[in-house]
Amino acid sequence: MTTPKTNPGRFFEDFAVGQVLEHATPRTLTSGDAALYKGLYGPRFAVQSSDAFAQAIGYRQAPLDDLLVFHTIFGKTVPDISLNAIANLGYAECRFLRAVHAGDTLSAASEVIGLRENANRASGVVYVRTTGRNDAGETVLEYVRWVMVRKRDPASPAPAPVIPKLAERVDPASLGQAVPQLDTARYDFRLAGAPHRWSDYAAGEKIDHADAMTLEEAEHQIATRLYQNTAKVHFNLHEQAQGQFKRRLVYGGVVISLARALSFNGLANAFHIAAINGGRHVAPCFAGDTIYAWSETLETAEIPGRSDIGALRTRLTAVKNRSCADFPLRNGNGAYAEGVILDLDLWLVLPR
Amino acid sequence: MTTPKTNPGRFFEDFAVGQVLEHATPRTLTSGDAALYKGLYGPRFAVQSSDAFAQAIGYRQAPLDDLLVFHTIFGKTVPDISLNAIANLGYAECRFLRAVHAGDTLSAASEVIGLRENANRASGVVYVRTTGRNDAGETVLEYVRWVMVRKRDPASPAPAPVIPKLAERVDPASLGQAVPQLDTARYDFRLAGAPHRWSDYAAGEKIDHADAMTLEEAEHQIATRLYQNTAKVHFNLHEQAQGQFKRRLVYGGVVISLARALSFNGLANAFHIAAINGGRHVAPCFAGDTIYAWSETLETAEIPGRSDIGALRTRLTAVKNRSCADFPLRNGNGAYAEGVILDLDLWLVLPR
Amino acid sequence: MTTPKTNPGRFFEDFAVGQVLEHATPRTLTSGDAALYKGLYGPRFAVQSSDAFAQAIGYRQAPLDDLLVFHTIFGKTVPDISLNAIANLGYAECRFLRAVHAGDTLSAASEVIGLRENANRASGVVYVRTTGRNDAGETVLEYVRWVMVRKRDPASPAPAPVIPKLAERVDPASLGQAVPQLDTARYDFRLAGAPHRWSDYAAGEKIDHADAMTLEEAEHQIATRLYQNTAKVHFNLHEQAQGQFKRRLVYGGVVISLARALSFNGLANAFHIAAINGGRHVAPCFAGDTIYAWSETLETAEIPGRSDIGALRTRLTAVKNRSCADFPLRNGNGAYAEGVILDLDLWLVLPR
Repeated sequence: MTTPKTNPGRFFEDFAVGQVLEHATPRTLTSGDAALYKGLYGPRFAVQSSDAFAQAIGYRQAPLDDLLVFHTIFGKTVPDISLNAIANLGYAECRFLRAVHAGDTLSAASEVIGLRENANRASGVVYVRTTGRNDAGETVLEYVRWVMVRKRDPASPAPAPVIPKLAERVDPASLGQAVPQLDTARYDFRLAGAPHRWSDYAAGEKIDHADAMTLEEAEHQIATRLYQNTAKVHFNLHEQAQGQFKRRLVYGGVVISLARALSFNGLANAFHIAAINGGRHVAPCFAGDTIYAWSETLETAEIPGRSDIGALRTRLTAVKNRSCADFPLRNGNGAYAEGVILDLDLWLVLPR
Repeated sequence: MTTPKTNPGRFFEDFAVGQVLEHATPRTLTSGDAALYKGLYGPRFAVQSSDAFAQAIGYRQAPLDDLLVFHTIFGKTVPDISLNAIANLGYAECRFLRAVHAGDTLSAASEVIGLRENANRASGVVYVRTTGRNDAGETVLEYVRWVMVRKRDPASPAPAPVIPKLAERVDPASLGQAVPQLDTARYDFRLAGAPHRWSDYAAGEKIDHADAMTLEEAEHQIATRLYQNTAKVHFNLHEQAQGQFKRRLVYGGVVISLARALSFNGLANAFHIAAINGGRHVAPCFAGDTIYAWSETLETAEIPGRSDIGALRTRLTAVKNRSCADFPLRNGNGAYAEGVILDLDLWLVLPR
Repeated sequence: MTTPKTNPGRFFEDFAVGQVLEHATPRTLTSGDAALYKGLYGPRFAVQSSDAFAQAIGYRQAPLDDLLVFHTIFGKTVPDISLNAIANLGYAECRFLRAVHAGDTLSAASEVIGLRENANRASGVVYVRTTGRNDAGETVLEYVRWVMVRKRDPASPAPAPVIPKLAERVDPASLGQAVPQLDTARYDFRLAGAPHRWSDYAAGEKIDHADAMTLEEAEHQIATRLYQNTAKVHFNLHEQAQGQFKRRLVYGGVVISLARALSFNGLANAFHIAAINGGRHVAPCFAGDTIYAWSETLETAEIPGRSDIGALRTRLTAVKNRSCADFPLRNGNGAYAEGVILDLDLWLVLPR
């Protein structure tokens, strides 16, 4: 008698606080992935686009896009964490700790740091801290996410609730570790596309990124597969046609990457995402939707020991099927405005 | 007076047994092709995904996906063999003989090994043995396929029929040549995604691969062009709209690659296709179809001289627009069940 | 008070003859870009497809496709030149001056060489000469284009009109600089896909390229983003739905690349575009259109000092949704025939 081979995914009962999950499949990222990433989103930040530009300021070569790294690590966690998820609820304490270059092999592990059964007893919330490592064993990325996961059996007993205490924002003192000491005198603002440096931004400033992209099924599917993310809702129309939305759901990471690429128009020198303080996928996104984005500067911060770079905390909002010229976010009643799909709290790094 | 320049393709009359066709265009495969292949199908086998994983067990670096190699070689044969084909009828005796790595340049040649005119005199079957070589002249792949090709003129005389005798299955003794001697103690089953090794599978076992992918026009077109496969039926809607199906036909190789990628869920350690014993594209596939897959183990075999790896003969069935939970294959009357589109007989290699 | 950060693009009033614009974002092209380019268009020219083939005849390695270089440079100019453009009117004097290889970083600059306000005073024509450079500072590409750009204010004064004198065709003496001295004895015509060399073509010859490709939204969007081309008309359905065409417009460069790839069937050994003498996007192209192409040889020319290669001047015509078997170009009244979308005058290079 052989054992069952198909992975059914973990249910809420299968998680325990302290449990460490080593995720499959290690992945060598290459210049091929970087090219496809460019084709899928169109980012124009000079540091990630040009080896010559990156080397001039102190990188070994152009680093891979931070979000390509994030999505790759995230994708690995799906078969172990969220195959039976109902919803991806949030992110926190996400820090990019080391530049990743073409040729680096990434792998991921997650520790369960919290559990809380829902009142309906049909599901519960699982909190994990995920770590991405390169082949030298160095941590390149770390983040917490929490996700609502189905129970196998509503009658099974609830675990003692553990809700981790998460920082409202990453401490500026811990930012910028993925950025080598830069020779900013050699940072060519003209080549980078805009004259604005860290000190040109101020809290309260709102930027309409103006550009927009309409998303196609083939695009989000290719992207999501590139990250080896297997969540069925993104790929299986035959099944989704029977579900709530009647169609495939776009992986939230695709919206993040599109919004980030659009944000070049206004944040051209914010070349690095140092941290994601928090994030919510406010509403689902589907093929055919047109994505716009705008940013609000929440805070500027010096990074201790770094006279080359400074940190900008921004709220990146993605909106679908309406312009961001009026900076849509919330209604009078405090609820998210019609069309808002992403509310992301980032620490960005710019040259000083 | 200039000579005609457009390639009209060969008709049945243009083939002769013993004829050798050297195919255009040599192709250097790169990490870019590997990345796009991942984006198009989402394979997760660790050996092809991670240089670090592959090197740990004895590869020089991650080999390219076997089917990327197959489709590249196949694509080269199209302008010479099947530009005027009515149907691709079958494959046999396909063996993967040498690992292919990013940077290798592949070229292809085919020998005509059989011919048989059809009773209707309007077409005939052409059998070719195709060989793929790397730039060192080593054979990396070999297979037989037969295809139904139009005659230029129904009145032209029929050749003497020659029908090659083809093996029902590749002999296990000739498998595994593309796999270096592996240090399986360093094969990390946790990183690879499942604990099951060769000895965990047994004849008769059926595996529902559970996942599924809905295919888009852009996806199969990009894939088919990546292989430089020029068959018009995959690309020309304007012409196809007048034809039998009213739309573009998906290249059968796309279905093979999708089914293979889906098979990870249940066959995570079957990292290498050593041979294709036979295959049939049972029914056409179109954009919008959702592909599911399941496998049945037909046979397990030791490979003489190899204590590191073993061979698993599986029937990989791809089905469209229905789940594989009930393992659809044939009806009571022996015909293929509704929805079955691919019936492929493979030798896979797993660590022992 | 912070300064506005969003780039609104230049209006007609913002250009002055003699002005030099250094464009963002430098871009390192890699084998990943080459792979995606192959997937998007399916080119089969052996020199760009195979390192082994290219090296045999004298290249350091396979050069990148000429049009990938062209589109990359073109894309960089969009935010500075044509963000507020109404129409791209023409190209002239485009020369490919140096082979570009994977790993090269390209950047672009444009000089304004002409200005002419339109009679309606709402817009004007801007002529620029754009130069693409590699990271060694060498010019790899040069071309003139003119584009109709909106005025910010119809009442603003017109500049003195300057209309540059442009060559009707590039002088053959200046062609071929991007091609190393070739050992054509090692050029394998069988591997390249056709026996026809330079001397086999003659003025007046018409070639139907026979193959055709139906274009998808995802394909042209991925392509256009790969070139970091941000023109809104290609991406924003939400906005375009309100406009003249009710849908996204395909970037003209996508049509050029498709037609070029199709032209392999009949021009297999015309491995290099040495120059674009002129070009017009005669009619818009949309997703769903099927592109056919044909070529007419206008002229053949020896290249002084080059016994290895010769030049072929061809008119490459792309047509949508109709076959090119009857070589459609103009009606009896001299207007472009129904379906013609591209009229391109090229110098191609072939082995002698």
